[in-house]
Amino acid sequence: MHKKYSPVQPPKRLLMGPGPSMVEPRVYAAMAQPVVGHLDPYFFEIMEDVHSLLAQVYGTNNHFTMAISGTGSAGMEAAVSNFVEDGSKLAVFASGFFADRIAEMGRRQGAQVVRLEKPWGVTFSADESRDFIKREKPNVVAYVHAETSTGAVNPGEVICEAAREVGALTIADCVTSLGTMPVEVDRTGIDIAYSCSQKGLGAPPGLSPLTASARAMEWLHKRTTQNHSWYLDLKLLDEYFGASHRYHHTAPISMFYALREALVVVSEEGLEQRYERHRRNHLAFVAGMEAMGMSMHVAAGHRLPALNTPVVPAGIEDMKIRKRLLDGDGIEILGGFGPLAGKVFRVGIMGAGSTKENVLLLLEKMEDALKAEGYAAPASGRAAAEKYYTSRLT
Amino acid sequence: MHKKYSPVQPPKRLLMGPGPSMVEPRVYAAMAQPVVGHLDPYFFEIMEDVHSLLAQVYGTNNHFTMAISGTGSAGMEAAVSNFVEDGSKLAVFASGFFADRIAEMGRRQGAQVVRLEKPWGVTFSADESRDFIKREKPNVVAYVHAETSTGAVNPGEVICEAAREVGALTIADCVTSLGTMPVEVDRTGIDIAYSCSQKGLGAPPGLSPLTASARAMEWLHKRTTQNHSWYLDLKLLDEYFGASHRYHHTAPISMFYALREALVVVSEEGLEQRYERHRRNHLAFVAGMEAMGMSMHVAAGHRLPALNTPVVPAGIEDMKIRKRLLDGDGIEILGGFGPLAGKVFRVGIMGAGSTKENVLLLLEKMEDALKAEGYAAPASGRAAAEKYYTSRLT
Repeated sequence: MHKKYSPVQPPKRLLMGPGPSMVEPRVYAAMAQPVVGHLDPYFFEIMEDVHSLLAQVYGTNNHFTMAISGTGSAGMEAAVSNFVEDGSKLAVFASGFFADRIAEMGRRQGAQVVRLEKPWGVTFSADESRDFIKREKPNVVAYVHAETSTGAVNPGEVICEAAREVGALTIADCVTSLGTMPVEVDRTGIDIAYSCSQKGLGAPPGLSPLTASARAMEWLHKRTTQNHSWYLDLKLLDEYFGASHRYHHTAPISMFYALREALVVVSEEGLEQRYERHRRNHLAFVAGMEAMGMSMHVAAGHRLPALNTPVVPAGIEDMKIRKRLLDGDGIEILGGFGPLAGKVFRVGIMGAGSTKENVLLLLEKMEDALKAEGYAAPASGRAAAEKYYTSRLT
Repeated sequence: MHKKYSPVQPPKRLLMGPGPSMVEPRVYAAMAQPVVGHLDPYFFEIMEDVHSLLAQVYGTNNHFTMAISGTGSAGMEAAVSNFVEDGSKLAVFASGFFADRIAEMGRRQGAQVVRLEKPWGVTFSADESRDFIKREKPNVVAYVHAETSTGAVNPGEVICEAAREVGALTIADCVTSLGTMPVEVDRTGIDIAYSCSQKGLGAPPGLSPLTASARAMEWLHKRTTQNHSWYLDLKLLDEYFGASHRYHHTAPISMFYALREALVVVSEEGLEQRYERHRRNHLAFVAGMEAMGMSMHVAAGHRLPALNTPVVPAGIEDMKIRKRLLDGDGIEILGGFGPLAGKVFRVGIMGAGSTKENVLLLLEKMEDALKAEGYAAPASGRAAAEKYYTSRLT
């Protein structure tokens, strides 16, 4: 009963894993502002800002564009549970962990799940995407725009177009893309997109930005079965977030402050500049890896800027490298899991953490750690990245 | 695109509604500490602290005692969705809004819901509680320990005993009781209890502390149907929070910092002292209300210390009083809803906000607001409360 608790004082970390990513001081400052009530006029202003700022980042005019009061996985469950019902046919593009999670959530809603499979990190061609959807004629198509488990991007244009042709709704997992690369919900034709607060947007974890098209909401209002989830029922959430502000749950006020401020940071930087920053730092990191004789798991042209998966060199245990970085330098990177366990590192270069300084530091420290474990890089990764930055000044 | 956003700067509020309640500066300071990864050893320490501190407040030795990554309603949905399945018989003690919500969630899981009904704010006798359970022989019994919509307490001993006799699990909603009055999960025999972070515990909203008995977890592991919710599946959460720390979702790190610090504050004050503080401030408030000629909606002996429901005097519009308090004095109280709309105020005297100063200030300001709307109190509420404090110095 009488244990003495010291204050919360986390060790200094440079977060370069798959998320959470680094959070700017002004976002922490906003989060620590005094809580107001969830029906306070001031909180409605915050919600309105979150709505309009999210709409910009998502590239959408959707009326329902708001943050779900849970983490990214809650957003995934909101997407699946609202639009996949008992007896639905759900088609999943499956080449990574989070696609599998969508499939699992679909099964839990009673859906028949059909999968187009590829090894983790391999993407789908336009033809096979189109053929799969036309053949299966599902009610809902789900794909992962940015696979956090593999580092691969799956562009959605062909998928969304084919889905529309067979009358299916599309769900896109944008957890690791939002704020780091264009998502363009409306232009792509995505019906439901969800993400998280703690990766490309640079807020702490705890909220899941979600947007749903008018077409999707229309389908939802006609749905004859009820969502098993009350907490994530978008029809109820729409009434709370909408003009009537009908009480649903007590929103996590502080997290909304943080997300709102993080979105202002994104808006002030400008989307194009932000994407270009992520692209440059990603390419510099890849140049460094390659100079060190390491290869990337995902083929060029299909790589996420925010999440990099260099292959662990033969004879090296990824856990030992990660432990050296964490214990010695306070740098967090993670490893692969599932079929990629022990085979790749997962290096996040996203949000506030996507800087030249961080890339150079990480390359240097990775080189040190690999060397200590017996891997001799043929050339300096840091020097190669520096050269990349110098040669591409614009 | 180029709207200028000012920093997050909420108006000064004294939160005396049904929650969120006031948050201490040291809790905000903890929340704003830098985020670490959700698999960082430091975060596991935080989770361990949250576990053991919550166990003290809940009065339990349950292995599963942790915070769910959503607000109080997510905790309710976790309780219902894990332990109520398609075809279950769910018995609900229904005399308030949150009991109705449990019933609604039960229906969404496919349960047959049976209700023992009372007008909102009226409690159940031992005999009728026992008879209801023995007659219905349900699989799960749910009751609201502290009804936030009415201000009434439903003690659980008889309910839990009768439920055990018919082999039913019990769910107790402790959203407005935890941290303000004894909950005593083990002694009462509750199987599943859930609460929230932002009322009696004094953290911002965003987490839902939940505990489940060994008996409940055993039932869950034998359950043959699958929880429709993946996000709230306690079997998966148990693996993440437990020794193996198997990845489930990215926990809202900052909210865990805040809850951990709020629980340390509770622990430092001491539970008995904390309950006594809530009791005294509640009784002082009631003395003030009665001096002002106002009555309490809930009968004496059945009132929550944390949530008070004075009856709105005849001829007074509650909204006008609330608006005067909010706009004029920055004080938030809420009104009733459902059958109690316009009939009661809902006044929270809880957590860090439960102080003599706040009670006296609120009584004074309520008296002013009521007077401005044409209600003349026969005596000063503030003076009556002061007298209460003076006459009960110990």
